[in-house]
Amino acid sequence: MTALDSPPLGPVLEDLVRSHRPRTEAGSVPANIPHLQVPPFDRFGIAVATTSGEVFSSGDADLPFSIQSISKVFTLAMALSADDSGSLWSRVLREPSGTSFNSLVQLEVEHGIPRNPFINSGALVVTDHLMERSPDAAAQVLRFLTDQVGHQNGRQGPFIDEVAARSELSSSSRNLALAHFLKAFGNLRRPAQAVVENYVRQCSIMMTCVEVAKAGLFLAQDGRGAQGAVVSRSEAKRIGSIMLTCGMYDAAGEFAYRVGLPGKSGVGGGILAIVPGECAICVWSPRLDSKGNSLAGSAALADLSDRTGWSIF
Amino acid sequence: MTALDSPPLGPVLEDLVRSHRPRTEAGSVPANIPHLQVPPFDRFGIAVATTSGEVFSSGDADLPFSIQSISKVFTLAMALSADDSGSLWSRVLREPSGTSFNSLVQLEVEHGIPRNPFINSGALVVTDHLMERSPDAAAQVLRFLTDQVGHQNGRQGPFIDEVAARSELSSSSRNLALAHFLKAFGNLRRPAQAVVENYVRQCSIMMTCVEVAKAGLFLAQDGRGAQGAVVSRSEAKRIGSIMLTCGMYDAAGEFAYRVGLPGKSGVGGGILAIVPGECAICVWSPRLDSKGNSLAGSAALADLSDRTGWSIF
Amino acid sequence: MTALDSPPLGPVLEDLVRSHRPRTEAGSVPANIPHLQVPPFDRFGIAVATTSGEVFSSGDADLPFSIQSISKVFTLAMALSADDSGSLWSRVLREPSGTSFNSLVQLEVEHGIPRNPFINSGALVVTDHLMERSPDAAAQVLRFLTDQVGHQNGRQGPFIDEVAARSELSSSSRNLALAHFLKAFGNLRRPAQAVVENYVRQCSIMMTCVEVAKAGLFLAQDGRGAQGAVVSRSEAKRIGSIMLTCGMYDAAGEFAYRVGLPGKSGVGGGILAIVPGECAICVWSPRLDSKGNSLAGSAALADLSDRTGWSIF
Amino acid sequence: MTALDSPPLGPVLEDLVRSHRPRTEAGSVPANIPHLQVPPFDRFGIAVATTSGEVFSSGDADLPFSIQSISKVFTLAMALSADDSGSLWSRVLREPSGTSFNSLVQLEVEHGIPRNPFINSGALVVTDHLMERSPDAAAQVLRFLTDQVGHQNGRQGPFIDEVAARSELSSSSRNLALAHFLKAFGNLRRPAQAVVENYVRQCSIMMTCVEVAKAGLFLAQDGRGAQGAVVSRSEAKRIGSIMLTCGMYDAAGEFAYRVGLPGKSGVGGGILAIVPGECAICVWSPRLDSKGNSLAGSAALADLSDRTGWSIF
Repeated sequence: MTALDSPPLGPVLEDLVRSHRPRTEAGSVPANIPHLQVPPFDRFGIAVATTSGEVFSSGDADLPFSIQSISKVFTLAMALSADDSGSLWSRVLREPSGTSFNSLVQLEVEHGIPRNPFINSGALVVTDHLMERSPDAAAQVLRFLTDQVGHQNGRQGPFIDEVAARSELSSSSRNLALAHFLKAFGNLRRPAQAVVENYVRQCSIMMTCVEVAKAGLFLAQDGRGAQGAVVSRSEAKRIGSIMLTCGMYDAAGEFAYRVGLPGKSGVGGGILAIVPGECAICVWSPRLDSKGNSLAGSAALADLSDRTGWSIF
Repeated sequence: MTALDSPPLGPVLEDLVRSHRPRTEAGSVPANIPHLQVPPFDRFGIAVATTSGEVFSSGDADLPFSIQSISKVFTLAMALSADDSGSLWSRVLREPSGTSFNSLVQLEVEHGIPRNPFINSGALVVTDHLMERSPDAAAQVLRFLTDQVGHQNGRQGPFIDEVAARSELSSSSRNLALAHFLKAFGNLRRPAQAVVENYVRQCSIMMTCVEVAKAGLFLAQDGRGAQGAVVSRSEAKRIGSIMLTCGMYDAAGEFAYRVGLPGKSGVGGGILAIVPGECAICVWSPRLDSKGNSLAGSAALADLSDRTGWSIF
Repeated sequence: MTALDSPPLGPVLEDLVRSHRPRTEAGSVPANIPHLQVPPFDRFGIAVATTSGEVFSSGDADLPFSIQSISKVFTLAMALSADDSGSLWSRVLREPSGTSFNSLVQLEVEHGIPRNPFINSGALVVTDHLMERSPDAAAQVLRFLTDQVGHQNGRQGPFIDEVAARSELSSSSRNLALAHFLKAFGNLRRPAQAVVENYVRQCSIMMTCVEVAKAGLFLAQDGRGAQGAVVSRSEAKRIGSIMLTCGMYDAAGEFAYRVGLPGKSGVGGGILAIVPGECAICVWSPRLDSKGNSLAGSAALADLSDRTGWSIF
Repeated sequence: MTALDSPPLGPVLEDLVRSHRPRTEAGSVPANIPHLQVPPFDRFGIAVATTSGEVFSSGDADLPFSIQSISKVFTLAMALSADDSGSLWSRVLREPSGTSFNSLVQLEVEHGIPRNPFINSGALVVTDHLMERSPDAAAQVLRFLTDQVGHQNGRQGPFIDEVAARSELSSSSRNLALAHFLKAFGNLRRPAQAVVENYVRQCSIMMTCVEVAKAGLFLAQDGRGAQGAVVSRSEAKRIGSIMLTCGMYDAAGEFAYRVGLPGKSGVGGGILAIVPGECAICVWSPRLDSKGNSLAGSAALADLSDRTGWSIF
C-alpha cells in the first residue's frame, strides 16, 4: 500500500486520459435526468489530491460536473460530525444492500430502516438529520465543500445548479415515494417534500475533479480537512468502510475486487476514491455502465490501482 | 345454491346477532386510523337485500360506519362502466396478491402494475381513472351510492365524513408513497396528492349495513342496480370473481373456503358478500382479525353460509 | 347458473372442437419434460360428465394424455378424506400464491408452509401425507381414479407411464430442492427422494378427457363419487374454492374472470373444470400459454361458459 | 496501517483473553448442528501469525475447533489457483448478499448464480469446481491446510471430524435443497448429494487458532504460502476484498466498520482476519451473536484493531 516505488503521478494521469477518454458509443446516460444527457460524451478528467498537499490532474479536470450521489459521502460526514448522541445509526444501517440502488423492497422488509446511508432511502434519512441543524441542508453542504476546496484564484468554486435541481425534482417521483414510505415508518422528521428538495439540490452541486479530490482529502488523512478536523480518525475509517462495501451501487464487490479502494460514484459520471494515508482521487466521464457507475472512470481507476499498487488489500 | 329450503331469514339474522355480537376483548382495531378506534366494540349489524326486493336486517344495521375498502367494489364498478376502451385492464391486473394488502414489493416486481384493483395501489389507479371524468371522484362515488340506496324517509343516507378523511389523510404516508411510486412507473395521470385525497375521502364514506347491502345488490342481479344497468352481466360476473380471489386481503382463500361467497371487507369492520341471483349481504362489527377483516363479521358469514346453504361452490 | 335454456351439449362440443382445435404455431410445450414435447400439437379433446349420468365428448376425447398437475385435485381429495384430525391444514395454507408456480421464495418467507396444495411444494406435502397410509401413494391414486372411471368395455383405463416418470424424475432437480427445503423446515416426514418419486409418478398418470371428467364428477355432486362419498359436501365445496383461487398457476384470477368456474390445469395441456350441481368438464390440447395453462383449452372453456351461461358468479 | 508503534503483541493478546473470555450466558450456539453445542462456552483462544514468521497466541489457541465456513476462504483460494480459464467467475458473483446467509431467494432472482462464494450456495459451486480435479475435494483441502501449517512436533495437525460430518450431513436438508436448486439452474456438474457431502466434510475440519492463523497467512503476504505461491498477488488482494464485503454473513458492513479488516467467520465460533502485509489473526469462542458470528471473537478483534491501529481504512 505504499506508493514509494510508484511511477511519477503526472505522466501516469496523462497516460490514463489518453487510454480511457471514451471515444466510442459504449455506456449510457441516466434516462430520467435530462440535464445529465447534455455533456459531450468524450469528456474525461482525473485529479489526485495528496496528503502532502499536492494536486495532480489531467484531461477535463477543471470542468464542473454534477456530483450527484458523491454528495452522500459529504452529507454523511457532516451528519456524523454533528451526531454526538450517535442517533443517526439507529435510523440507518451500515450493511450492503444487495439490490438495485433505489429499491423499496429492502425498506419494506427492514421496516423503514435503510440498509446504508448511500442508497437513496438512507441518504434521505441523512438529509433529514442534517435539516435539524438548519432547514437549508443543501446550503450547509455547499458551504462545507467550499471551505474544503479553499480559495481558487478567479475560479467559481462549487455551486448548486438550481435550474437542473428544479428539473430533476419534477421527475423525482421515486424519491418522493421513498420519503413518504420512510415517513410511514416514522423514520423521517421533516416533511417528505422538503427533504426530497434538499436532497435533489445537494445532488445538483457542480464541482470539478480537482475540487472533489480536494474536498474528499479529509478521508485520506484521518478526518482532518482543510480547516481542521471534519470527523474523528475513527469516523474517517468508518466512512471508508461504508464506501468500500456500499459505495458503488450493486457493483461494490466488483469495484473492491478490481480497484481495491473505498469509492463513491454518482450518475453524473464522477467517482471519488480514497487511498488511506496517501490521497483522494476523483475521476469523471459521463457514460455509465449497467450498474450506474462511470464506465471509463471505473476502468481508469482499476488501471491506476494496477500501476501504482494502491490497494487496501 | 338455492335458498328454497332455507330457514326464514329474519329469525336467522336475529340469531346470528345473538351468537356473534362480540362481547370479549378479541380482535384489534386499525392502529393508524384514530377515528376507527372510537366505536363501541360490541356493535354488530347485519342486513340482507334480496333480488326480490326485500331487505332483512338485525342488530346495529342502521348505524352508519366507515365503509373503507368496501368502496373499492363501487369505484371498480363505476370505472368499468365508463371504460369503453377497456384501458383500465392495461393499468391493473386481476390476480391475487399473495402478500399483505399494502405491500410495495409486488409493485416493484411488476413494474408499477398493481396485482388487482382491491389492493391499495390498484385502488389508487382506479381512482385516478375515475378522476378523468370529473376531478372530484369521491363526490361521484357518493352520488352513485345515494342513487343505489334510494329515498329513505327521514334518513340521512350515505355521506362523507370529511373530518375523519382529513384526519386519515394526515396519516396517509404509505398511500402517498404508493401514489408517487405509481407515478414513477408512469401509471398515474393526476397528481399523487390529489389522487390520495380522493381515495381517502371515498374510504371515509359512512353507510349503514342496510345501505351497503342495497348498494351492492346490482352484483347479485347481473349488473342491474336501482336505476338501471350499472355494469353489464359479464362485468358483474367478473367483479364477483375479483371479489372472491382478492376481496379479503391475504385471507381471500380462507374466506372462499369457509364462506364460499364473493366478499369485500374494509378495516372499518364491514364486509359486503354476494350470493349471485339471490342477495347482497352486509355485516359490520369493528374488531378485526390478524388479516384486517372483521372478526365477528367473518364468523357470522360462515355461520350464515352453513345455515342457508348459500355458497357458489 | 342454470343450464335449462342452454343449447344441446353435443353440437356445442363439436362446434368448440371446430373453433379451437389449434392449427397454428401459437403456444409452447414444457421445455424440461421431454415426453410432453412429443404429441401432435393439433390434438384437441373435450368431455363433459353430468350429474345426471350422461357423458358428452368431442375431438380427441378418448386419447390418453399426461394429467400432470390435475392429479393434485385427486390427491388433495384423498388426503382430506383420510384426514380425520385435520392435520393437513396445519402443514399447508389455502391462499393464492401470487408468484410463479414453482417458486421457493414464498416457502422461505412462510417458513416452510406452502401457500396452497396446488403449488408444487404444497402438492409434495399432500403426497407425503398420503404416504402415511401406504408408501406407494401413486398406486393409491391410480386405484382411486380407476374406481371413479369404472368399467369400460375393452378400454385401458388410467395407467402410470412409468417410462415417462423415470425420464421426468431425472430432470426433477427443482422438485428435489423443494422437498429438501420442506424437510429443512420439518414439513416432510418421508425421505425427500421417495416423496418426489411418488409425486412424479402421480403426475405421469395417463387418462383421456372422458376419464378425467368422470373422475372429477364427485366435485360437482357434493362429494359423491362413483362408489359413494369421496369427501363430505363441505370438503367438496372447499376443494372447489381452492381450485378457483389457486388452480391455474399465476392465472387463477384471469381464469376466474374469463371462465368463472373452479378449474385445475396441468402442463400436459389438460384442464378439469367444475360446474357445481351440473357437471365436470375436461378439455385437452397440448400447447400452453405463458402461464403454463393450455392455450386452446382455456379459450374453449371461456367460449363454453359464454354459450351455456355456466358460471358460479 | 503500520504496527511500528503498536504495543508488544504477546501481552496484548493475554489482555484480550482476560477481557473477552466469555463467562456469561450471552450468545447462542447453532441449533441444527449437535456437535457444536458440546464445547464449554468459556473457551476463548487467539493467535497471530506474522509475515516475519512469528506466531503469538493466548488462551485456548491450541484446542482444535470446527472451522466450518472459514473453510470457504481456503476452497476459494484453491479453486482460483487452479482456475486458469477464469470459468469460476461465470458461475458465482462477487457481490454482498444483503440477506441471511442461507437464503434461496437471491438464488431464484439471480437464476442460479450465487451472489458470492461465501454464502452456502456459492460455496457449493466452489466445491463442485474443486471436484473437477479430484472427487474427494475435502481431502484436497485437508492436504492444502496441512501443507500450510507445516510440521508440528507431536501435534496432530488439521483433521476431518468424520463423525461430526456424518451427523451434520443428516441435518443438511437446506444445503441439499440449495444443491438441487443449483442443479436445476444447470450450475452444478457433480451429483448434488456428492457435492454436499464434500462441502460438509470441509466444514468439519478441526484446527486450532494457531493452525488457522498460519494457514491464512498467505493472504497477508501477497499470496505466498508456506510452500510457495498459493495464488497470485492480484488474487490474494481479491480474496481479501471478498472477505471484507461478504465474509461475515449479514454483518459484513458492521464488521468492516468496527474492525476494519477482511474477515471470515464460521458457526463453530472461529474468525480469520487478515492485516495485509502484517499478519493473519484467528480468534475462537463458541457463542454466536444474532448474525451467526462469534460474539466474544468479534469484540476481541474490534478491541485489537483499536489497540494496534490495524485497519485497512
